Order: sequence, then C-alpha cells, then structure tokens
Amino acid sequence: MNVPLTPVRFLRYAQEQFPSKLAVVCGEERRTYAQLGERAVRLGSALRSAGLEPGDRVAFLSSNCHRFLEAYYGVLEGGGVLLPLNFRLTAAELAYVMRDAGAKFLFLESQFLETAESLRKEVSMIETFVLLDDQPRANWLHKFNYEEFLTGGDLCRRDVMEFDEDALAELFYTSGTSANPKGVMLTHRNIYLHAISVALGNQKTSDAIEIHTIPLFHANGWGIVHTLTMAGGTHVMLHRFDPVEVFRLVERERVNNCNLVPTTAAAILNCPERKNFDLSSLKKVLIGGAAASPTLVREVEEKLGCQCIAGYGLTEASPVLTLSPGKPGLQWGEEERIAGQASAGFALPGAEIRVVDPDGKNLAHDGQTMGEVVARSDGVMKGYWRQPEATAAALQAGWLHTGDMGTIDKDGYLLIVDRKKDIIISGGENISSLEIEKALAAHPSVYEAAVIPIPDERWGEAPKALVVLRPGLTATETELLAFCRSRLAHYKVPKSVEFIEALPKTGTGKILKRELRKKHASGMGEHNGAHRA
Amino acid sequence: MNVPLTPVRFLRYAQEQFPSKLAVVCGEERRTYAQLGERAVRLGSALRSAGLEPGDRVAFLSSNCHRFLEAYYGVLEGGGVLLPLNFRLTAAELAYVMRDAGAKFLFLESQFLETAESLRKEVSMIETFVLLDDQPRANWLHKFNYEEFLTGGDLCRRDVMEFDEDALAELFYTSGTSANPKGVMLTHRNIYLHAISVALGNQKTSDAIEIHTIPLFHANGWGIVHTLTMAGGTHVMLHRFDPVEVFRLVERERVNNCNLVPTTAAAILNCPERKNFDLSSLKKVLIGGAAASPTLVREVEEKLGCQCIAGYGLTEASPVLTLSPGKPGLQWGEEERIAGQASAGFALPGAEIRVVDPDGKNLAHDGQTMGEVVARSDGVMKGYWRQPEATAAALQAGWLHTGDMGTIDKDGYLLIVDRKKDIIISGGENISSLEIEKALAAHPSVYEAAVIPIPDERWGEAPKALVVLRPGLTATETELLAFCRSRLAHYKVPKSVEFIEALPKTGTGKILKRELRKKHASGMGEHNGAHRA
Repeated sequence: MNVPLTPVRFLRYAQEQFPSKLAVVCGEERRTYAQLGERAVRLGSALRSAGLEPGDRVAFLSSNCHRFLEAYYGVLEGGGVLLPLNFRLTAAELAYVMRDAGAKFLFLESQFLETAESLRKEVSMIETFVLLDDQPRANWLHKFNYEEFLTGGDLCRRDVMEFDEDALAELFYTSGTSANPKGVMLTHRNIYLHAISVALGNQKTSDAIEIHTIPLFHANGWGIVHTLTMAGGTHVMLHRFDPVEVFRLVERERVNNCNLVPTTAAAILNCPERKNFDLSSLKKVLIGGAAASPTLVREVEEKLGCQCIAGYGLTEASPVLTLSPGKPGLQWGEEERIAGQASAGFALPGAEIRVVDPDGKNLAHDGQTMGEVVARSDGVMKGYWRQPEATAAALQAGWLHTGDMGTIDKDGYLLIVDRKKDIIISGGENISSLEIEKALAAHPSVYEAAVIPIPDERWGEAPKALVVLRPGLTATETELLAFCRSRLAHYKVPKSVEFIEALPKTGTGKILKRELRKKHASGMGEHNGAHRA
Repeated sequence: MNVPLTPVRFLRYAQEQFPSKLAVVCGEERRTYAQLGERAVRLGSALRSAGLEPGDRVAFLSSNCHRFLEAYYGVLEGGGVLLPLNFRLTAAELAYVMRDAGAKFLFLESQFLETAESLRKEVSMIETFVLLDDQPRANWLHKFNYEEFLTGGDLCRRDVMEFDEDALAELFYTSGTSANPKGVMLTHRNIYLHAISVALGNQKTSDAIEIHTIPLFHANGWGIVHTLTMAGGTHVMLHRFDPVEVFRLVERERVNNCNLVPTTAAAILNCPERKNFDLSSLKKVLIGGAAASPTLVREVEEKLGCQCIAGYGLTEASPVLTLSPGKPGLQWGEEERIAGQASAGFALPGAEIRVVDPDGKNLAHDGQTMGEVVARSDGVMKGYWRQPEATAAALQAGWLHTGDMGTIDKDGYLLIVDRKKDIIISGGENISSLEIEKALAAHPSVYEAAVIPIPDERWGEAPKALVVLRPGLTATETELLAFCRSRLAHYKVPKSVEFIEALPKTGTGKILKRELRKKHASGMGEHNGAHRA
C-alpha cells in the first residue's frame, strides 16, 4: 500500500493525535492543533470555492504569522501550490516572480499594500487579493479580508489517497545573483521526506516549542514549519527580528528551540537587555544561512546556556542537508567539539553529500581537499520552474550541484569553504574569502568582515577586506593585517583593509558580495572561467 | 528528484557516517558498520554470481545472528527478496512455504540440517544450500559454508538510483490459524518508511544498543533491525531466549533498549539470577506481540528501573502501527500512566488507526465502543504473495483489516480487546477473553491464564478459564471465580476454571487458543457468522 507522501499528513496527524495541544502562538492569538487543522481545511475549501484549480499557484506576501502557517497546509488541502514571496524584494522583482509563476491569488499583509497595488497594475493575471490582517481594506481590495475569505470554505477534505506525492507543493524563488530569480519546485514528497530527515537528525519531538526567527518564505523557515508540525510541537511566530522581542517570547512561551543566522545570533549575544529575561528554557540553538564561526558557537553556548549546532542547506534541497551534532564515539576534546559544531556537520539520514573535482570525481575526506559540494537527498527539488536548462545544469548526473566549495573531514563533517564564485584565485592558488573573514572575526574589535577579490597585476587577483568595527572599539589597517599574518598563510593575507559602516545583506543574513564587488573592487565583475564554471 | 526508498540506504548511510561504530555483537564476533556494510555488499554480489536473478527469493533458516542480519541488506543489494523462515515450523510446513514462495536459495544453521535434508528431498526447486555456521557440512551440502560463499562476491554495488522502491524486499509467512500460511509482501518502500516511523515514534538514536530477543524472522524482529541500522545503533544478537543470557549480554554490552513479549518479560522478572547482574544501562523496554498488562508494565519499571511501554502491530504492517509513550500535556496520574503505557498506544507518525463497525463506519473514541481495528500506514504490505483474494479481503477499501477488536480512548490510545475470532458471544453480548485473562492475571497465585468459549445451552457460549499457577503457589477454582466476580460484570465471569501445566504458544509468546479450544472445549470449532466475519 502506498500512502502518498504529503505534508498535509503532518497536520492531519497532529490534529488527530494532539488536538488540544498548542500549535501556534502569534501575538495574542493562540490556536490548538484542532483549530489549526480546521482552519487549514477551511482555507483549502475556500480557495476552491474562489476558483482555485489543481496546481494553481497561491502567493503569500507576509511576515511570519499564524495565517501564513495555515497556508502551508491549506493551500495544499485545496490542491494548490504555495508561493511564498520574499517581502524584501522590490515591487519590480516581485512582479517578475508573480508573472513567472503565474499566480492567480495573492494574500498579503496590509504593510505591503503599496507593493500589492503596483502588482495589481502590472500583473494582470492575479484574480484575487486577500488582506491577511484585520486592517481596513484599500478601496480596490473590494472583496476580502482573510477571515471573511475563510467563511467561504467548509470542513470537507480530500482522502489522503487522492493526493499525488510527485505534484508540486511549494514554489520558492531563489535570490539569483546574476540572472533573474528561479522558482525552485518542491514536491509533496520532497517536503514530507525532508521534514522527517530533519526530525531524525535533530531529534525533534512533540515537546519542542520553537520560535520562528527565520522568515517563513525562506524554504518554509528552513523546513522547520513541517518538521515541527509533524512532531506536534508549538510554533511561536516572530513577525520581525528584534532581540528583545525574541527574549520576551522565549521567556513567556518557554521556547526551547531556536534557529538563527550568524548576524541575528550576534545581535542576540550583544543585546544588553538579555540579562533581564529568563531564557533558561532554551535547549537548542541552530545556526544556519551562513557559516558559523567556532567563536559564535562557543558564545551562544556560554551566554544562552544551551547546545548550539550549525547546519547547511539550500532552497533546492528543501533545504537542510547537514547538521552538526556530535557522533557517538568521536571523543572530541572541547576545542574539537566547538569546531565540529560550527562546521556544516554531516549528512542527515536521507541525504548524501560529496565534494567533487571539476570532473565530478569524489575527493578525499581529509578535511583539506576542497571541491564543489554535491548532494543527493529526498528533499532535492524536482527542478526549476519552467527552466529546463538551469535544471539540467543544477542536477547533473543525478546530483545537485550546490555552487558551494567545501571539504569533508575523516569523520564525515562538511566545512563550507566558500561560494564557488567567491573564491579568490591568486597566483593560481584558491583562496577562501570565508577563511580570511573568519580570521578577521576573531579580532576583538571586529564586528564582521567581508573579503572580496581585487585586480592584482602580479597575482591576477588579491584579497581585500571590508571590515565593520564593534561600536566603541577601534583597530587600524596595519593592526588587522598583522593579526591576519599571525593566523593565515602569507598569500592569504589581504592586500588592504577598508573600514565601512555596515555590510549589505540578504534577508537571511548572507553578505551580498556582488554589491561589495561592484562598489569596492573596481574592475572586478562576476567571475568566469574554468575554476568557477 | 526521487531517490528510491530502500532499506539498503540505511546500511549504506551507517557505513558512510558511522564506519568505525560497533554495528553487531554476536557471540564473540564484533563487527563495525564498515565491516557489516562490506559483507552485505559481498553477499549480494556472491548471490548474483551464484545465479540469483532480480526478484528471486532467498530463504534463511536461522536463529538471530550477525549473518542473518547481513542478509537483510545483502539479499537486497543482490536484487533478491529475503524470505526469513520461522524455525519453529515443522518440516512439512516449511516445505509448503518454500514451495509457495519458490525459493532458489536456502541459508541454514547446522542445527536445522535435518530439516534441510528433508526440504532438499521434497522441494526440488532449491538450487543452492549454504551452511551459515562453521560446522562440518553434510555430504550432500557439497558446496558452501557461508564464509566460502562470500568469497564469490566483490565490493561493487549498484547505484541506489537503480533500485525500485515498489519492488518486493521481504516476504514473511504468517502463521495462519485456519488456512495455510500466507506470504506477506513488503516492499523496499514499506520497510524504509516503517523504520522511520518507528524511529520517530520511539526516539531511536545512534546511542541505542539493542538486544534482539525477538526472532528476526518475525517481521525483521518487529522492524527493529532496520530502525536500528538507520540510526547507526548497535545490534546485540541473542540466539535463543534465556533470561540469564539476556542479563549477561545487557551487562556486558551496556544494552539500553530491549523488546520483549509478555512471556519473556515475565521470565526475566521471575528469574532469581537477575540480582547478580548490573542492568542499570537499560533505558527502554518495549512489550509487544501480545497485550501487556498494567501489572507487567509496572513490574518491569520497578524491577528493571527503566521506562516500559507497549506497542501493537502485525506482519502485514511491517509490523508496528502504534506505541504507547505518554503524549505531552496529558497529565496522567500514576495509575493512568501505567494503564496508558500498557495499552497498545497511539498511531506512529506515518500510520492511522481506526476502530470500525461491521459496515466499516468509524466508532467513537470513548474507550468503550469495541470494533475491528483497521489501519493505513506507509508500512502496510503490498498484499499476500499470489493470493489476490486474501489480499482483497485484508485490504478492503484501502484499509488493512487486522482481525483484532479494540477500543480507542479520547486521547487516541488503542486498547486491543481481543482477536475478532476469540471474542466469546454469550447471550448476545461480546465478551473479551482478554479482559477475563487480565482479571485472572491480577491474582497473586496466577502465572498466566487463557479463556476460551465453551458451548452453553442457555447462552450459546460461555467463557471457560485455563489457568497456570505460579510455582509453589495455590488457588482453588472457587477462589478464582470469586476473585473474578469481584472484578468483572457477572456475565463475564467464567463458568469454570481448569488448572493446567502450561499454555501452548507461538514462538512470539502468543497463546495458541485454537489448540486450547480443540482440547478443552469439545464441540467448539472455529467461529463463523456475522460477528466474526
């Protein structure tokens, strides 16, 4: 008997087994799994009543909130495909995405009304706009607020056997550094099996109370949405990142799980209000989105008094591929433990990773030999939406080519060395910009750093560091270069240091090196050539 | 990307991620996952060299040992279907199974040589016999001992993408109470997803060290083989159940997980040598195979100092469907906790259970209304081998009909009330033989009891109790009937009690009521009629 693998089963299961358990906390709203489950079914039904056909895309432009969470199940219950939009995109970028995906429905929070108005004018195929919050509607939004929309639905739901596990469930657009954003197609099966992998790799149980600090549009908040629902844990919604609001919610809801990016983790550690809150419920902090440093992992463990591990993934893999807890029998010393937990970690059950040379040959697991990270897992996408060529390029020979460079050590732990395109090639040597950034970050005055290539007559390229200092602290270029020289091979030491106010970043804390290159490395465009193909 | 779901991935994963971790302890043999993985691949290759074609059945007649464990992966690596034989069957029954399954290979331990010799004469299709242990061969076994057989294989293995997840992986014959045994067809996907369900429901991690007290031929030792391999835990093999040997291995290997049936649990609790061993490593005992009593669960927790839960399943479901840990937020008192943990428990993630009336209508979750248990899960079989009619009867309307009667309470906990065919119908009332047995078992002098129907002129049927007393203790019929009267509704109290030496049982501790009925209830055959259809 093959029961279709669909995330809809997760919510139905939680509704059946944990009906009175708290499913979601959002502002002052609190809903049980029975309520969440009913509302999701109602949403699916209302969407069908409003004209949703199987496979239609339903877009959400929303911060993290309980209605957005409902959509992760309701849209699928209705037979649609969820299209979560990155609200940090410009109106023009959003218009591109909406047109490319061909979305018929747009659900939005009133804070994005202006953007929606421009979308309404530019993207004619959007048939229905629904306002998620209870704010007064704009006059062109003549039909719906969300709660009214729900009343158009009933509680009839399809038998799970009628679902197609290979059908598209979620469509996420990647930021796209050089070309237009691409839609990552995740199937019901991808999402189901990915959530299970993460639950197995991270021992997620029904006791979990998790605060969503990562925007849900980012591959369903790194897959935590589904992992947590499957386990029957509690979702605590954070609308917008603010350390004090995180502390307040952790204390009030006794949050025990939290996912962060390095920049939000740093913000939490550096926020003086921390000491005014009881954060003792926290058990696990997971750092992802960008590489964590051992310093950061240690500080999180010391200051928050909980385990801190890291992970690695990408939207194309649903997204998590690796997590970094210890393996039994490793006998790590304390330094090794911190370094291991700050690495990307090892493959989840259900996932395989390799580092390969440009010919696709497996490289040694020696913690030294650098190659492109390729992956095969139950979460790897069906492909890019209507982009067969990009799909073929990403899924070569049945492996997802991540565009990340890494090493794997003898114990199977992956270290991400750099983005393939951020590697600096100096005198024929590959230099990891990340390695230099980590060296700089260890200096007490440095808040964060980014390293980019600049043209160099002798070596072709050379590294240049852009440094943000900690408030109130100082350091000179000479001092930082000396600091680097004491920690890095000579050829890796930056040629210059420039101090700047802040680093440009994506919504998930990734440094936008493309912009830095444009501004600070005149003459250096995007890389081309064999090393970076 | 759809990576085929096959248990072969479990061992490959453990081999990749936990190569030097202890995989299996068997007598004085100890093998790591690297070794186990290599040997499994070698076995698959050797089978192909010896003529195995894709889909061929490979039979194993073996007690629990590391070579049998290898077969769970090696036969699949070779493209074959594993057919584990119940060594408690007679030679004639085994001949029936071998012919029905059409097995070409038979691997056997030397203790079963006599049986094998008779199979050789009666089942002509067996081409290759391999002796699993290192004993001298019989002269007709002119070719192989197992280790020699392995040398015919190499370490080349198929890409996992070449596997077909819907292909048959394991074929288990059920005991068959009235008809001939039926082969239960479990696919690669069934087994993969079932193992994950159990791991999620039972929080099985790589720290697990599990002793296999359940014969592996019993749906891969209740699915523990694959769950444990997936997690990278350690398999401790027990050849034949003996309490002192269990204690010795628990102490020596620091075993923390153990599955038992009620009779082996009772044997362990009643064995005086227990106090001579350090069993403090034990963390979880799971009781299955037959209903556990609260008394038993409490005693296990008290005397072994670990958590004791129960579970429910059947070969047709790979086999586990439910487990009985507490759910968060239940606020059980101590009595309720013990009763809850002694119930069958609630559905695993990936499984659904219902109790239904004869028309298939869902019954109330009130802990009272009794109906047939039906199930739908990722582990439910493809069907019975070459028995389309039996398959259609078992998988009606997409649900597995278990033939067990049960109730579900408001919290979703299933209680198995009886086998549908063991229900006693007295004056139009359904009486659970199990309920009476549990009442009797609470009497301090009763070791165990079985209740069967006897013909009754007035009521049609009436219950009769067959009781085994504890060594050295006594009780009279009058005393036990009075004891029952104080605990059961009047119409449920047995009409008579007969004291016997021992109850006839299957290899997994289930009481053979069919035999008891034949011997002790003249005039009562197998039931027929609407109530037991």
